[in-house]
Amino acid sequence: MADVSVGIIMGSQSDWPTMKEAAHILDELGVGYETRIVSAHRTPDRLWSYGKEAAGRGLKVIIAGAGGAAHLPGMMASKTRVPVIGVPVQTRALSGVDSLYSIVQMPRGYPVATMAIGSAGAANAGLMAAAILATNDTELAIRLDAWREALSASIPEVPLDE
Amino acid sequence: MADVSVGIIMGSQSDWPTMKEAAHILDELGVGYETRIVSAHRTPDRLWSYGKEAAGRGLKVIIAGAGGAAHLPGMMASKTRVPVIGVPVQTRALSGVDSLYSIVQMPRGYPVATMAIGSAGAANAGLMAAAILATNDTELAIRLDAWREALSASIPEVPLDE
Amino acid sequence: MADVSVGIIMGSQSDWPTMKEAAHILDELGVGYETRIVSAHRTPDRLWSYGKEAAGRGLKVIIAGAGGAAHLPGMMASKTRVPVIGVPVQTRALSGVDSLYSIVQMPRGYPVATMAIGSAGAANAGLMAAAILATNDTELAIRLDAWREALSASIPEVPLDE
Amino acid sequence: MADVSVGIIMGSQSDWPTMKEAAHILDELGVGYETRIVSAHRTPDRLWSYGKEAAGRGLKVIIAGAGGAAHLPGMMASKTRVPVIGVPVQTRALSGVDSLYSIVQMPRGYPVATMAIGSAGAANAGLMAAAILATNDTELAIRLDAWREALSASIPEVPLDE
Amino acid sequence: MADVSVGIIMGSQSDWPTMKEAAHILDELGVGYETRIVSAHRTPDRLWSYGKEAAGRGLKVIIAGAGGAAHLPGMMASKTRVPVIGVPVQTRALSGVDSLYSIVQMPRGYPVATMAIGSAGAANAGLMAAAILATNDTELAIRLDAWREALSASIPEVPLDE
Amino acid sequence: MADVSVGIIMGSQSDWPTMKEAAHILDELGVGYETRIVSAHRTPDRLWSYGKEAAGRGLKVIIAGAGGAAHLPGMMASKTRVPVIGVPVQTRALSGVDSLYSIVQMPRGYPVATMAIGSAGAANAGLMAAAILATNDTELAIRLDAWREALSASIPEVPLDE
Amino acid sequence: MADVSVGIIMGSQSDWPTMKEAAHILDELGVGYETRIVSAHRTPDRLWSYGKEAAGRGLKVIIAGAGGAAHLPGMMASKTRVPVIGVPVQTRALSGVDSLYSIVQMPRGYPVATMAIGSAGAANAGLMAAAILATNDTELAIRLDAWREALSASIPEVPLDE
Amino acid sequence: MADVSVGIIMGSQSDWPTMKEAAHILDELGVGYETRIVSAHRTPDRLWSYGKEAAGRGLKVIIAGAGGAAHLPGMMASKTRVPVIGVPVQTRALSGVDSLYSIVQMPRGYPVATMAIGSAGAANAGLMAAAILATNDTELAIRLDAWREALSASIPEVPLDE
Repeated sequence: MADVSVGIIMGSQSDWPTMKEAAHILDELGVGYETRIVSAHRTPDRLWSYGKEAAGRGLKVIIAGAGGAAHLPGMMASKTRVPVIGVPVQTRALSGVDSLYSIVQMPRGYPVATMAIGSAGAANAGLMAAAILATNDTELAIRLDAWREALSASIPEVPLDE
Repeated sequence: MADVSVGIIMGSQSDWPTMKEAAHILDELGVGYETRIVSAHRTPDRLWSYGKEAAGRGLKVIIAGAGGAAHLPGMMASKTRVPVIGVPVQTRALSGVDSLYSIVQMPRGYPVATMAIGSAGAANAGLMAAAILATNDTELAIRLDAWREALSASIPEVPLDE
Repeated sequence: MADVSVGIIMGSQSDWPTMKEAAHILDELGVGYETRIVSAHRTPDRLWSYGKEAAGRGLKVIIAGAGGAAHLPGMMASKTRVPVIGVPVQTRALSGVDSLYSIVQMPRGYPVATMAIGSAGAANAGLMAAAILATNDTELAIRLDAWREALSASIPEVPLDE
Repeated sequence: MADVSVGIIMGSQSDWPTMKEAAHILDELGVGYETRIVSAHRTPDRLWSYGKEAAGRGLKVIIAGAGGAAHLPGMMASKTRVPVIGVPVQTRALSGVDSLYSIVQMPRGYPVATMAIGSAGAANAGLMAAAILATNDTELAIRLDAWREALSASIPEVPLDE
Repeated sequence: MADVSVGIIMGSQSDWPTMKEAAHILDELGVGYETRIVSAHRTPDRLWSYGKEAAGRGLKVIIAGAGGAAHLPGMMASKTRVPVIGVPVQTRALSGVDSLYSIVQMPRGYPVATMAIGSAGAANAGLMAAAILATNDTELAIRLDAWREALSASIPEVPLDE
Repeated sequence: MADVSVGIIMGSQSDWPTMKEAAHILDELGVGYETRIVSAHRTPDRLWSYGKEAAGRGLKVIIAGAGGAAHLPGMMASKTRVPVIGVPVQTRALSGVDSLYSIVQMPRGYPVATMAIGSAGAANAGLMAAAILATNDTELAIRLDAWREALSASIPEVPLDE
Repeated sequence: MADVSVGIIMGSQSDWPTMKEAAHILDELGVGYETRIVSAHRTPDRLWSYGKEAAGRGLKVIIAGAGGAAHLPGMMASKTRVPVIGVPVQTRALSGVDSLYSIVQMPRGYPVATMAIGSAGAANAGLMAAAILATNDTELAIRLDAWREALSASIPEVPLDE
Repeated sequence: MADVSVGIIMGSQSDWPTMKEAAHILDELGVGYETRIVSAHRTPDRLWSYGKEAAGRGLKVIIAGAGGAAHLPGMMASKTRVPVIGVPVQTRALSGVDSLYSIVQMPRGYPVATMAIGSAGAANAGLMAAAILATNDTELAIRLDAWREALSASIPEVPLDE
């Protein structure tokens, strides 16, 4: 079985329906990962220790999803040099614009690689994690290329009436 | 001299021109305070210890200003039960809407008492801190009432051409 | 039974499903409160007298919820030095951005401690009220700490498929 | 000299550079008016009495300008049946979108006739006031028609390089 | 039966569910009105003649509702000096922000008295029309005052669980 | 000299600094055009006759620029089948988002070919007009291709410090 | 049967329910067209060859619909001088504002004739394509005029209760 | 001298003042890079070949900056599996919100690691590139840790009046 090189973390259980899209992609590409609930506000100490241990535990990429005042991705980026990919979860009142601004508008020094709002963004977080790992893993690079070619090949030429 | 009951913290030196409006108000009302730079991302351990020690050190209110992905007020609210007042600092590209959403859209459990964007918000943070302290300090309540009455009395009846 | 130290007011009956989240929190924390409909536009005189009498009646905090051109929190802040916490109620066309701007963008002199849009904001208004009272009530501070610890402890470590 | 049939009120002296555009238009059209600073938050009692006495004093229209959490027009509409025209004053951080939402999004029962943001809106408030008065003043109607025709006639057919 | 002093016009049949709120209010207040579909784009000549004849036919106020690139209220304001009240109809993609901006942001010279987005705005358009007429109709003024008092009196003091 | 096949119209003289970018492009491409100020609100009859006569006068494309409640492009599209290209002029308070929404959100039946906000949009309006004419003018097509190739060729490979 | 003079392309099968409104209009007006799925990201080479061959194959207009980071219309405009009409497809989180900005805000040199968000925009894309073709096709111009007159004639004068 | 492992590309010369912040960071961290102007619209073939050759030429990360309808980052992500970091350049009318939406809202399959708007985002793009490279370069990881520690150490504890 694949080593755990990606940590998928999220602010609450309610983010999981969105974030499991990232897990599905990593499953398809044969990338090992773990999933954790790490709330920036409710479990800040968990965030602290997760961030401090990430590099030492062999994590190469962290995918962090959160909604609203979505502090998890940015705070994780402050605690570890491991690249953090942020997924803005869609919210009820502001549709995820709040999540997007809270994640992407990070100050100089602490980047978060921000994806699109919602489940397309979560899937893309999985792909971005794989692309990062593939910079140093030829076999994964080949699998990622194949995944991309299959996606391209799946597009019909003419739209169909349902 | 007044005891330090309010902590005015901010994410960076560049927030000080905004945040000193809060200090001016507290000076006018005779409320003791301290000022600190506490960056959620650059000095997370300082944030941690400030939050943990706030109640024990006798702080009754914390005023926290930040801009962009403004995580400082919300993270402080996660670390202490002391009421946190948040000031969204105006930003270049998004005019502080990013700061506002990052501060106000906190999840259930961790309120931040959010003020208006910019220096009016900072001044109001000082007044809100005083109002909170005044719930248990009759002399401050009298000074606050006087401050409010003076403001009302200062309004001319007819606008003047400059 | 607990003394009434918090007034929960709202612009109309239709705000109650949102605002009762504040009441639930205060029930959980053993804080006494009253609930009133006070419309800034339809019952301005009720607003006037509520504001004038608030401090004298022993209210320590006022929680005010309103939607659209949400004038109630700000007008109450103009009539009393008692701290006012504002809850922007979600609206149909503008999702509560109108409520948020009308509540948070108060001018220098009259702060409203603004919470998130909708029911999370209402619950947090209850918590902020408790935190303010706890600055001078050790037993409530202990109950609030316990409430916060229970929330933290309720977070599972790994997300679960439903 | 013309009777005072229009009240031009504004939240603060700083609104006057915008609001005097309304006064200029009324001067041009020979409509009598008065100008007052009436702050919803700083002078709520002045607002109360102004609203209560407006109809009795013979005011036919009230023009109210304000910025930010612009409560003045809506609160005035709550206190008098005299038609209220609202002018959203441009603001620093939110460019007057906050003023616009706070003025236009009034609940059922209390309309505010909202104009464009800034000085064009203030000038139009003067024109709208005149149009309302002209529904029962034939001479003013003629002057207003002439004003409109002069505006139309002033438009050159071909744009000119400066 | 009351004379027709108000014209309620709208861009399409689909605006009627919103705009009939204006008609209901005028029914309640005993104000005579007519209803017409006048599309700025599909029936521009109808718009032209409606505008040209409005004053001569005895219309004192025009209420115009439209959605999206809502040109009807502003174009009508260009064709007649009769005061035009605009109602931004809620839209699918942009929730009526497009309608609001298209109606309210009129250039100097052609005011549209803009109401809130959707049916509350339509009801308020009826009330604003009545308030304008009441500036010269004492009996209507008395009915309008009574309507306002009844609204105020209908507000319960305490919110009720459903 | 080239025949006049394009009409460049604008709501006011103040739109000319933006709209002359369209004229420059047409000059470069050897396309004949005329420029007119046609205000939807101030000169509606001019708009009417311009629209009615456009096709008969041999105009093939109309470029219409306007700001704020920018009704000119859409109203022109209602009066003529000649394709209308709309240019949202940047505005002071809302930066041209009001212009953009008023121009682009046209109802079914009356398209306006909307360009980017401001002078880049005006230049592109000239290019779009040329592209439309080039569908039936081989020589213009060749000149347009050359213009596009020259633009591509002008891009250096490496950015330079100024 | 009519020659194929219009290409209707879209980023994915899921855009077809929106884009078929364009096809319906072209059917009504007797304009020949083809429909293709051309994804800017998934099938960039298809985009390349479609763009390169468009003029040579006799296409006079291209209608391109896409949602989110909607790159298809703009990239097609970069590859061909054939006029490109862009349709912003409505999206889940941002309602199509993302699509609109990505399509309309093209840089100098590469215009996209942008329509309204969603199916009204798609129908209008069909009408704009017809209007462009009609600049050089008298019979189509007559059919387009008739279509427009029928639309105008279909508007009832008075709104009906359903 | 360091190998070229990062490509910094941008849509035009005017993006360079923003994008050179990325270059400065890579200089500080001793990471080799190249800079190129690659316009999605003006030089699409350059984009094509750059993307196709990126992996083979040994590029490990691509940083792409663009403004407005910013198609460069997303189109590059479609042409190569090499991770693409996107920088939304601030724009005149829409302040970079257009750039942000065009870059971040990518569809499933083609992630762009989006940074904050403007020069802070560009600097962070350099840091993110370094963090990606550091997942497989221990010496760079040490330099990156040192850079981060120096940033943290540079924060004074108390804000200073200027």
